[in-house]
This record gives sequence, C-alpha cells and structure tokens, in this order.
Amino acid sequence: MNFNEKLERAVETSRSLLCVGLDPDPSMIPGQLKREINNEVKLVVDFCIRVIEATKTAACAYKANTAFFEAMGSNGWEALEQIIDAIPSGKVVIADAKRGDIGNTAARYNEAFLNRLGADAVTLNPLMGLETLDPFLSSEEKAVFVLVMTSNRGAADFLQRRFQGRMSLGEYIAEELNKKQSQSQARIGMVVGATQAGWMEPVLKANPEAHLLIPGVGKQGGSVDEMAAVLRYHKGLPIFNSSRSIIYAGGDDDEWELKVGEAASALKQSLEPITKRYVSK
Amino acid sequence: MNFNEKLERAVETSRSLLCVGLDPDPSMIPGQLKREINNEVKLVVDFCIRVIEATKTAACAYKANTAFFEAMGSNGWEALEQIIDAIPSGKVVIADAKRGDIGNTAARYNEAFLNRLGADAVTLNPLMGLETLDPFLSSEEKAVFVLVMTSNRGAADFLQRRFQGRMSLGEYIAEELNKKQSQSQARIGMVVGATQAGWMEPVLKANPEAHLLIPGVGKQGGSVDEMAAVLRYHKGLPIFNSSRSIIYAGGDDDEWELKVGEAASALKQSLEPITKRYVSK
Repeated sequence: MNFNEKLERAVETSRSLLCVGLDPDPSMIPGQLKREINNEVKLVVDFCIRVIEATKTAACAYKANTAFFEAMGSNGWEALEQIIDAIPSGKVVIADAKRGDIGNTAARYNEAFLNRLGADAVTLNPLMGLETLDPFLSSEEKAVFVLVMTSNRGAADFLQRRFQGRMSLGEYIAEELNKKQSQSQARIGMVVGATQAGWMEPVLKANPEAHLLIPGVGKQGGSVDEMAAVLRYHKGLPIFNSSRSIIYAGGDDDEWELKVGEAASALKQSLEPITKRYVSK
Repeated sequence: MNFNEKLERAVETSRSLLCVGLDPDPSMIPGQLKREINNEVKLVVDFCIRVIEATKTAACAYKANTAFFEAMGSNGWEALEQIIDAIPSGKVVIADAKRGDIGNTAARYNEAFLNRLGADAVTLNPLMGLETLDPFLSSEEKAVFVLVMTSNRGAADFLQRRFQGRMSLGEYIAEELNKKQSQSQARIGMVVGATQAGWMEPVLKANPEAHLLIPGVGKQGGSVDEMAAVLRYHKGLPIFNSSRSIIYAGGDDDEWELKVGEAASALKQSLEPITKRYVSK
C-alpha cells in the first residue's frame, strides 16, 4: 500500500490526527511497572507496549524517538525493534531519527529505519543539502518528514532568520521540498512546530500539499486554535504528535494506563475542529 | 584528562593528523575474511579491529559512522560497542552521529554516545539551534564537532548561501560557535570539508581556535596543498578523516591488511607539511 493510502486510512479508521510519541525514559516509568520488572530493557518494552494498547483507539500514528533507545545501547536498539513490531499494522510508524548525511551514509540510515526496522516514515535534517534526502525517496510506500520549522526556541537561531529573500530559512526549505516532491516516489512531508503559528503561513503556502508532522501540542504549549486557523487552506494531512503529555500522564499512579488512555482521548478530542475537515461525516 | 590534552598527546605520539573513519559495509569486506567468518556482526567487528590494528601507528583518531552500524539493527549497535572498546586508549574516538534535537532528546544522545559508548567526541548538526548543543557541553573531557561546511556538493544548498550579511551560513554558524565556546566546558570543534577550501577562510577567521574535523581528503578529492594554505593561520588542531580510501584499500586481496596500513601511512605522510606545524621537532 502506498504511504498516502496508509495514512489516510489510519486517520479515517481512528478518526484522529493524533500521533503518540514513544520517548521512554526509565526514570519516569510508573512504579507499579518497575516493581514488576527488574530488567531495564524489558521494562521499557513493556511500558511502551502498554502505552500503545492504551492509546490505540485514539491514535492514527506512533513516533519512536531513537535517542531514548540509543541511550540504552545495543539492548535499547533491540527494544526499539520489539516495540515497532508491536504497533498495530494499520497505524503509521514514524522513526524520529532526524538524520542527515552524505549519500553512502544516508543509504545506510535508509536501510536501518525504512527497510530493517520497517518504519513507514523517518524524520530527516536537511542542513547538508537536498541530495542527502535522495536515498530515502525511492518507494511510494514510504515518507520522510523534513525539519522545516521546529517547535523549540532554538528555531530562532537559524530556521526563523531571513534567507535568500524569504521571510525565513524554513520557508526556503519548504519551497525546495515542494520542487523535490515531483522527482520523488516517497512522500516528502514537513516537521513544523505547533508553537510556531506566526511563522507557518509562508511555510505552508510554499508547500501546500505536504503532509505535516506537528510536535509541540501538550507539554510544549502549542495552541490547537491557532493551528486550526493557520491550517485552514493546507491540503496535506496534519499529524499532531504528543509524547510526554500522554505517555507519562499516569504519573506514579497504579491506574496509570487508564490515565494514559484518557490523555490520548482528550487530545484527540481537542483536535476535533481540525480532524473533521479530513474524515468522512 | 581533558579533551585538549588527549588530542594533543594523540597527535604528538602518532606524529599524525590522520583520523581513520570506520564505515564498515559488509559487501565491501575482503573475501579472505568473509570465507573465515559467516556471521555478519562478527565479520564487521573482526574487520574493523584488523583495520585499527593495521593503522594504529599512522592515526591519532578513529571515527565510527553510526549509520553503518544501525543498518545492522541491534546487533550492529553491539558491534559498535565492541569496536569502540578495541580502539587503543591513547587514540581520540569520535562518534560520527550528526545528531541534533531538542533538550531532553539531546540529553539522551549525550548519554548514548559520550557516556555509555564512551566516545571522546560526537558530531552534531546545529540546524535546530544552538541550545541543542548544550547537553553535550558539560565536561572538559569531551568535545563536539559541529557541521559548519560539509564536503558534499549539497553544501551549496544551504551552508554556502549568504546569511545575515555573512558570505555563508557556515561562516555565521562558526561565529556563533566561537561565542558559545566561552560558556562551554567541552571543546566545540567544527566539521569543515577538505573540498571546500574556497569557503574556508571566513569560516576559520570567525572561529580561529576551534579544533577541526576535516572529511573529504581521499575518495572525495580534497587537496592537501589547498588545505595547507588555508590553515596557515588557524590555531585549533585540524584532524583529517579518511574512511573508504583507507579501510577498503586492500580490495579483495589476501594481503589486504598490509595495503590498508600502507594507505594510512601514505595519507599520514601526505599530511606532513601540515602536521609538522603541530608536533615537536
């Protein structure tokens, strides 16, 4: 199935634009689970699988942040493989790797994330040039989400500064990605932060059909209302990621899985004004 | 030992500015070794350990490219750990990861590469802003090498374009890194491509004391003479990385280890006009 169909079907089936971000930090896993499981890797795998189970009716996609797995060494990478395998097959799986490197190296990252790990999409950093995306673009079944306007304050250092006569470097990147889509089998999406509504209009105008991965709702404070306004004319699908606000919603409570599920449902619900534009009545 | 001392001592002891890049591609490993070892991971570990053994008198540093290990999944990460452990303790170890992410994620990458894996330095991508470097900067024993002017043609897309009145975005990044060094315990170095001599003068002037990691000599065609000229007034130590030109120098020859050692020695020798500026007579 091509990526577009998979994403559209995942959104339609779940009636949700929510992506749940899996950033498992062993120190934040609920005590109830820690008392049951001694091994760090098993703990992380079990935690993530229960989070997936608790959120699967509310989410269209899952995003695994490679840093949290690599911090556990080779066992962490094994945990990542097990967790990816546990995600229901109808959901879109995004490897949040933010890689960017020259051709022969990029080809190995493509092998790592889209082939071997089997993710549907990977996040990429375009700083080293557009050619660094090429090894990821040869299959219709896959997508990349390229960093364009990130949700952190550091976006002001480079991405929000004027570039080549455009309002921002992010806007320029968006234009270049729009051109590149015509030579790509894979879908080229953009990462744009929910905290950056003020910067988004020219970015979206430059690349109006790109799917969007939008971090920054939840803990980072992005506003759904502002996003609803700025996305009004956008044709690509906007997927909203939340990690910490959902997966740690249970705190240290024994009923943590219930609260995780409720947090996901509440965020799905709050996105409804946007979601209803994309799903059948 | 702080990073500066370790690097200076490694250069002095080897009388070399050469860094050998470990990019192990199973399809390019000599047949002699493949006939001996069936298991892919063991093959990669054995190949890299023999490369290290064959090149250790000619090199001051080793750089492991994380992509080539991640392409093998969890076993690849285990191979990476074993190879890092096999590098002689007097050599500088660089994890070529090119990561760049928001604070809590960057902290996990710091844990992965500088703490758990035990590398002396990691390569970083600054696109998401200078704050993304912070989690890596708290120890004098460590260094980061930040992408400033890469060796590939894609550098022309963003890094070589005018930015904030500077000749290039790379020059601007170099200035910002120079400012940031004063608040950092770790050394902040720069990645600058040997193929980019024409762009280097303003970059080096903007950050004259930064150590440099210089890819692009060897297969990528960078000229040592041009580098010798452009580095004349630079105060930081320039470390030249070569990967494929060295580690695959033996082709499919049974005497491949000898040829790998010769290739490393020849490149060390060709760097001599630059090296002699930094080592005692």
